[in-house]
Amino acid sequence: MRTGADLAAIRERKPLVHQITNYVVMNETANATLALGALPVMAHAVEEVEEMASVAGALVLNIGTLSEHWIEAMVLAAKAANAAGVPVLLDPVGAGATRLRTETAKRILDEAEIAVVRGNAAEVATLAGREAEIRGVESIGAADSGAELAMAAASALGCVASVTGPVDHVSDGARTIAVANGDALLGTVSGTGCMSTAITGCFLAVASTPLDAAAEALVAFGVAGEDAAVGAKGPGSFHVALYDALYNLDPAALDSRARVDE
Amino acid sequence: MRTGADLAAIRERKPLVHQITNYVVMNETANATLALGALPVMAHAVEEVEEMASVAGALVLNIGTLSEHWIEAMVLAAKAANAAGVPVLLDPVGAGATRLRTETAKRILDEAEIAVVRGNAAEVATLAGREAEIRGVESIGAADSGAELAMAAASALGCVASVTGPVDHVSDGARTIAVANGDALLGTVSGTGCMSTAITGCFLAVASTPLDAAAEALVAFGVAGEDAAVGAKGPGSFHVALYDALYNLDPAALDSRARVDE
Amino acid sequence: MRTGADLAAIRERKPLVHQITNYVVMNETANATLALGALPVMAHAVEEVEEMASVAGALVLNIGTLSEHWIEAMVLAAKAANAAGVPVLLDPVGAGATRLRTETAKRILDEAEIAVVRGNAAEVATLAGREAEIRGVESIGAADSGAELAMAAASALGCVASVTGPVDHVSDGARTIAVANGDALLGTVSGTGCMSTAITGCFLAVASTPLDAAAEALVAFGVAGEDAAVGAKGPGSFHVALYDALYNLDPAALDSRARVDE
Repeated sequence: MRTGADLAAIRERKPLVHQITNYVVMNETANATLALGALPVMAHAVEEVEEMASVAGALVLNIGTLSEHWIEAMVLAAKAANAAGVPVLLDPVGAGATRLRTETAKRILDEAEIAVVRGNAAEVATLAGREAEIRGVESIGAADSGAELAMAAASALGCVASVTGPVDHVSDGARTIAVANGDALLGTVSGTGCMSTAITGCFLAVASTPLDAAAEALVAFGVAGEDAAVGAKGPGSFHVALYDALYNLDPAALDSRARVDE
Repeated sequence: MRTGADLAAIRERKPLVHQITNYVVMNETANATLALGALPVMAHAVEEVEEMASVAGALVLNIGTLSEHWIEAMVLAAKAANAAGVPVLLDPVGAGATRLRTETAKRILDEAEIAVVRGNAAEVATLAGREAEIRGVESIGAADSGAELAMAAASALGCVASVTGPVDHVSDGARTIAVANGDALLGTVSGTGCMSTAITGCFLAVASTPLDAAAEALVAFGVAGEDAAVGAKGPGSFHVALYDALYNLDPAALDSRARVDE
Repeated sequence: MRTGADLAAIRERKPLVHQITNYVVMNETANATLALGALPVMAHAVEEVEEMASVAGALVLNIGTLSEHWIEAMVLAAKAANAAGVPVLLDPVGAGATRLRTETAKRILDEAEIAVVRGNAAEVATLAGREAEIRGVESIGAADSGAELAMAAASALGCVASVTGPVDHVSDGARTIAVANGDALLGTVSGTGCMSTAITGCFLAVASTPLDAAAEALVAFGVAGEDAAVGAKGPGSFHVALYDALYNLDPAALDSRARVDE
């Protein structure tokens, strides 16, 4: 893991991160991407997603507010990204909550090569065929520990699994990394999970492996969360400070602040 | 009315509030719901709205940015909610401004059982067949006073009418409650009306009657607005402080701060 | 140019600014419009756009997240606005990045009368048939200087061209005005370009000519950016302060703060 160096690379190269994401968080993930130092672009029309995805540094698919045309666009974009060698990231928001979401996430995993799945415990457990409970898009509980779940999901899904929670766990099936950075206020703002996915997309465009990208993104985002929590009076002021903190992340200090465990 | 006790119940039970709402305010209503203590979920696909609405604590329908598939989804979701005993709330954004909005609001009221309609004076007057003027989604004026309008609309529509403005009026046709909490800055931020609807959805999931839910929600939201106004320098800082204030609402102090009149 | 007087007119008349815009910035442009003193309304259904556009003070079309029905709605709304004498503004977000965006912007320019095109250098250059490079929706470079480009685009497109960047250039083909107001932090927040388009829509509803409207809007928005930068710690706090600054703009001081050059 070289979080600081990869953050510096993001800021220098400004990779384009193409996001087909949900209506609730589009502004938030665009601003998080931009604050970190990459360039976001949102495009969902079937007429343009292949063109856009092919020239991106990474493609982020987030199923938080689905409908038919969007599902088609996600599949098309993912295949075009695969063909162009652009890494693809899936955020299976609400998988387990409705059949449409579960099936769409599975379809994307079947029809395209996904580099990283980033979700909460219940979402990832659902896709890995393990037990979990979800209320709307909130994970209520999973049978496995985070580390077990990440490793099992990585094996079952054939990609890196990034399971976020109070402590995050990232695994490629062989190695598993725990990331303890972050702050409880992250759970009080809608879309912080989606933001962590977008940030993972930024790191995917520059990191040496998807596992590194996923772990480094959670370190960077977690450290920003820790900085944003200082002086925050609640979710509103924390949310604002989070963009400031992403923008002000110091690559030179980042690795020493990482709270990781293998 | 037991605003404090019902807020405490929201925070303890964390009801799922399913929202089919407009693109402009999705992030705002999700964050207001979460800051208060409930769990928001946005889902609008016809393939999943029935499943989601059936397990929710309340369903919020907001017609602020309509299109054909969304209208079908709202009707489907409302019927599924009715069948499952989940209370349904309608925010008729812009009713009176275009025929599509007026007719869609009326269709929803015809085809489903609605617990509460929450709107500005012009929107509610339009649905109740009374005179009013609207510019876009802004109420310019109505022939009736707020109290008269709320009572007349409740009788005409067969549900609780919640008419917000400088002073809010909530009626079930028999009882009418005036709520004077709030701050003028609420009118300077887009979507605060929609947020008050989402907050009403949270209270609907726990309160003893729809009338109580509607009035308690406006007390809680108004008190948060008063707290947010302290130190605000304009709409931006007020908007941020509003989430902090919702999060920091003290159930023990809420009832004594209510400025209500029956 | 009479920026102060026209801002005062916006606040007095509260023109309705109908916006068919992208999902990413809807809340932002609505709030910027409202903070300045006008009334925003978002409506995109083919069933209602003609009715809404016909009664607006200005119509803003922004192609930042396109799909088929939205394109049809934009064309219908523009024609209805033309018929009603309502000025129409186009923000060609991402023109040059995909064929869909380039062709849609050209189609709107062909089928309707556009008063102002507001975009970055690469977007405007693409439409004017000149060389430029774009990455997603970010202008990387254009062959012409801003002033040359604005004048050439105004002539080629037969409308006012408003090209924003570190220094903005606005031209009607005969006169060209440079506007140097603003702050580098504007480039760190997603959607500030779209906000400047929305603000241009507000001024279009009251100014004496489209050229004046375009230049005055960039002065007002730039001054607000300068005010917002004072004390900002990054993109998050700057973004919040921008709404406060728009709301607190002093019409009496605005003309003396304009940094314009003809």
